[in-house]
Amino acid sequence: MTTDLAKLATDIAAGNRRALARAITLVESGRGDHRADALTLLDTLGTTQQALRIGLSGTPGVGKSTFIESFGLMLTGMGKRVAVLAVDPSSARSGGSILGDKTRMEQLSRDPLAFIRPSPSQTQLGGVARRTRDAVALCEAAGFDIVLIETVGVGQSETMVAQMADLFVLLLAPAGGDELQGVKRGIMEIADLVLVNKADGDLKAQASRTCADYAGALRLMRKRAQDPDGFPKALTVSALENNGLTGAWEAMQTLSDWRRDNHIWATTRAAQARYWFHEEVRLQLLARLAEDASLRAKLAQLEQAVTDGATSPAAAAASVIATLDS
Amino acid sequence: MTTDLAKLATDIAAGNRRALARAITLVESGRGDHRADALTLLDTLGTTQQALRIGLSGTPGVGKSTFIESFGLMLTGMGKRVAVLAVDPSSARSGGSILGDKTRMEQLSRDPLAFIRPSPSQTQLGGVARRTRDAVALCEAAGFDIVLIETVGVGQSETMVAQMADLFVLLLAPAGGDELQGVKRGIMEIADLVLVNKADGDLKAQASRTCADYAGALRLMRKRAQDPDGFPKALTVSALENNGLTGAWEAMQTLSDWRRDNHIWATTRAAQARYWFHEEVRLQLLARLAEDASLRAKLAQLEQAVTDGATSPAAAAASVIATLDS
Repeated sequence: MTTDLAKLATDIAAGNRRALARAITLVESGRGDHRADALTLLDTLGTTQQALRIGLSGTPGVGKSTFIESFGLMLTGMGKRVAVLAVDPSSARSGGSILGDKTRMEQLSRDPLAFIRPSPSQTQLGGVARRTRDAVALCEAAGFDIVLIETVGVGQSETMVAQMADLFVLLLAPAGGDELQGVKRGIMEIADLVLVNKADGDLKAQASRTCADYAGALRLMRKRAQDPDGFPKALTVSALENNGLTGAWEAMQTLSDWRRDNHIWATTRAAQARYWFHEEVRLQLLARLAEDASLRAKLAQLEQAVTDGATSPAAAAASVIATLDS
Repeated sequence: MTTDLAKLATDIAAGNRRALARAITLVESGRGDHRADALTLLDTLGTTQQALRIGLSGTPGVGKSTFIESFGLMLTGMGKRVAVLAVDPSSARSGGSILGDKTRMEQLSRDPLAFIRPSPSQTQLGGVARRTRDAVALCEAAGFDIVLIETVGVGQSETMVAQMADLFVLLLAPAGGDELQGVKRGIMEIADLVLVNKADGDLKAQASRTCADYAGALRLMRKRAQDPDGFPKALTVSALENNGLTGAWEAMQTLSDWRRDNHIWATTRAAQARYWFHEEVRLQLLARLAEDASLRAKLAQLEQAVTDGATSPAAAAASVIATLDS
């Protein structure tokens, strides 16, 4: 390992935010040599330090930034170090969000106990997942107590984030049962905590009704092994008026404490690591196939044949594998 | 192709049920030469004939068999040919269900227009998926109008079946909002139609309330591109008293017609074929890796290291790929 990498590791472990930012840029790089350095760095830092990883999802308009700002400041007010990672595979299109994030969380971004890092433009989800996982690991190595992983709540990114978070929070806005909430169906499956924001002013009553609707919907679903009694839970909050935030934080602690006490925390993290191992093997195998131009062409041609129903998926796959043996 | 295979193909196309049963046994075989024959047979039969593929999920006790018996007899009564495939990865454990199925659907199993095939004992989901996909293709080639793919509603098998069905039906029993329905959360995501069974006798009112609960829960979720207005829908039925079955069938037809008219049917099938192509490439690649004993040992050892947090998923995967190059 280069002395430069060794110093970077030491600086990160010492909680140097500039070093952390540099390391994240390194893990985000597509260059092969950068990737090798990133892996060395991550293995040097190890996984001994653990933060509470909170996945947070909410569609635009639910007041996600306001919530993160208020919730984050409440946590730093308790002396906790908070890192915010924004995951947005679509940011390639809505590139503005990259600059946006910090300005949307003005106070928090200036808080010495906080670190905010938006997602870089990425088109391929596999790349976003790897980058985010590495960034989370770096934030833990840098000694942050809480890592908030924010997603936009419309894509596949939620399930991906759920595979790297200790608990998952869904943020909603008040709405009638018939109004479209724009909640991707899969998110109901992974939510540990549903927070109905904007429970203030004219929307207060509406927020309570929405909260009751979701509490009812959650009761219709089977309790998971990782749920203590009363979870998944639905609560109302007002990020604007700082109402319900401590209650939400208490619920998150109750849940994470219970999971720690019942050995679910550790087993979940181990299962997540295995999941990403197999995911990485798959990704790297496919990447290796893609290196071969003729094979890449064959894959595309076979995919078309399968799409047209000209050949069966199994037969097409078999002929891909056959080319590997030749 | 052997004359035997050619004859088998002709017999299947002619709608010979014994030939169909033999072919399914062939696709279920783990033997390499059988697998090769199966692929030849499937490619010979092609994919020109299409049935309406209905995924049906419901936990034990909701009256699934009674529903399939009544619903199936209603369809055969309309002169439709109905195939029922039971998918149960757990049947390795509850082996009884294999004999069970036919006795649970006495009349339908004797109906010349019907064909019932339970899942063989299988432990690995990948194997179950391939086998079921092949069996569905064989039933379509045999000219069945409707293929019912039944799952137990407790495992991952639902999402797998959803990837090979044209529409997905969730069967429920009447229950209070606070009672556990045992519905796996993911199923709410893929359900096109929720049927609350046992809407008869003392449970009638309870069934209506349960139906309303689920209708409400479905309204909280975002409408999908493949949903016309009013879908996903929740209805009450009584398989015992043959109530609501025609209504349920009408809803399924409305949905499938709409999807046909809006070119969603064809594009969905094409997307499913692509999904299974990539899934097969993945499975067959991993199978090939597993052939190498030393590599298999390395994979197991690395998985353990990842589980223990001794190495990162990415680094572990990289060293797997490295062994392939050496």
